[in-house]
Amino acid sequence: MKLLFKIMYDGRAYHGFQVQPNGISVQEALCCAGEKFFGFPVAVTGCSRTDSGVHALGFCATVSPRDAASPADWCTVPVSKLHRALSPYLPDDISVIAAARVENDFHPRYCAVEKEYIYKTWDKPYKDPFLRGRAYMTCRSLGDDDISRMNSLAEAIVGRRDFTSFMAAGSKIECAVRDVRSAAVTRDTDGTVCLRISADGFLYNMVRIIVGTLLEMTYKKMSPADMERVICARDRSAAGATAPPEGLYLRRVEYDRVINWECN
Amino acid sequence: MKLLFKIMYDGRAYHGFQVQPNGISVQEALCCAGEKFFGFPVAVTGCSRTDSGVHALGFCATVSPRDAASPADWCTVPVSKLHRALSPYLPDDISVIAAARVENDFHPRYCAVEKEYIYKTWDKPYKDPFLRGRAYMTCRSLGDDDISRMNSLAEAIVGRRDFTSFMAAGSKIECAVRDVRSAAVTRDTDGTVCLRISADGFLYNMVRIIVGTLLEMTYKKMSPADMERVICARDRSAAGATAPPEGLYLRRVEYDRVINWECN
Repeated sequence: MKLLFKIMYDGRAYHGFQVQPNGISVQEALCCAGEKFFGFPVAVTGCSRTDSGVHALGFCATVSPRDAASPADWCTVPVSKLHRALSPYLPDDISVIAAARVENDFHPRYCAVEKEYIYKTWDKPYKDPFLRGRAYMTCRSLGDDDISRMNSLAEAIVGRRDFTSFMAAGSKIECAVRDVRSAAVTRDTDGTVCLRISADGFLYNMVRIIVGTLLEMTYKKMSPADMERVICARDRSAAGATAPPEGLYLRRVEYDRVINWECN
Repeated sequence: MKLLFKIMYDGRAYHGFQVQPNGISVQEALCCAGEKFFGFPVAVTGCSRTDSGVHALGFCATVSPRDAASPADWCTVPVSKLHRALSPYLPDDISVIAAARVENDFHPRYCAVEKEYIYKTWDKPYKDPFLRGRAYMTCRSLGDDDISRMNSLAEAIVGRRDFTSFMAAGSKIECAVRDVRSAAVTRDTDGTVCLRISADGFLYNMVRIIVGTLLEMTYKKMSPADMERVICARDRSAAGATAPPEGLYLRRVEYDRVINWECN
């Protein structure tokens, strides 16, 4: 038995999820908390490597004893109470919001069948102190027409396509085909301009490059046909700049099986 | 001529608005920024003294040269550009969102005729890392019925009444009569339970004591008639605990004259 945790974190203080030699990571913070809480070393495996400064609303990670010979009933706390029980052991910018039991063969990355990201852009002429480090502050106003154009451009990305144009140059991925299931841009209730995008998987920096491209194409009043040309180019230089990490949130991960989340 | 600034700030790092001997204040940060920007010392006067850790979405403060002999045209930057121009001089948790010219006799506290505060409570069983220091984390769930009850209790506060019960013990205010114009509790889009309250003025700690009382009375399933008894007692001990500062935001100040806000 492994535990699967659904986690929320403010990524500002972290060098991404994965343990890094040069700074503190979310994984490290979870390992520390887990070891203190369970009383023995734990292995923590995440559903993705988020970049430095990227946030999560529904990151998934498994936790299991590092010692393979541990008994099957190594977790004596009811799963539904784990989010509360772990809270005092975690820094206040990381929170476990739900937990579930999963089989030993479950892998939070390889068993994922869909992920959703959101990206927040703040376009008002002043900076919002409550969104610093949590949205990309372009301070360049977008009207309703612009947002509608940006949404049409985003819709043009949907489909099973080769997204080489939206992959960080130098990535060593063999296949850049991904199935983008939905992509929409709206004015959110917090005042930000928000991209919601889901796919079976994402290439390195894909969402951030899509956002940089959407903004550039919106400012230049380009059309979905122009976006089609960017995709067909299969060339990173056809797309726009990589938007900064602070606007990006991993929102949701779906798995190839039903996860029995518990939280009360 | 004075300048009136509309200001947003995240109060976590500050010992309130007013200059304090024991820590940095928002007023101090504004004085520093103003002196650097204008090139001479400025006087900054706020619309209220917010407590340590309290936030603002629409705080108002005047800025004028400290030297009374300054020329009338001491501000050479167009008022509509001030929010952008001042931005590099301010810490990133304080933002000027609009500016206006006002007459020399204008006082941001004495000319105010209405203020609105909001107070955010986070009731979910886990802590939201994005709301730490920005909402009161009770982690005690409120259902739709509870929120509807809490709203009825809040409505019972509306009116011109003596609010001694909701005034910090030891306050040296002669008259505790205030006109509460509106008070409503709703589940907000950010997931918090939010009190919105407006009045001609507020007593010291009034909103925080109201929130503490509303929560206690909601947990105990009390009625608007019970709230009426709390008000009539005119006794601080009849009300509940003072809710912590981090959930409180000064949202809006209305003045006895039209303010020509500029921002583009």
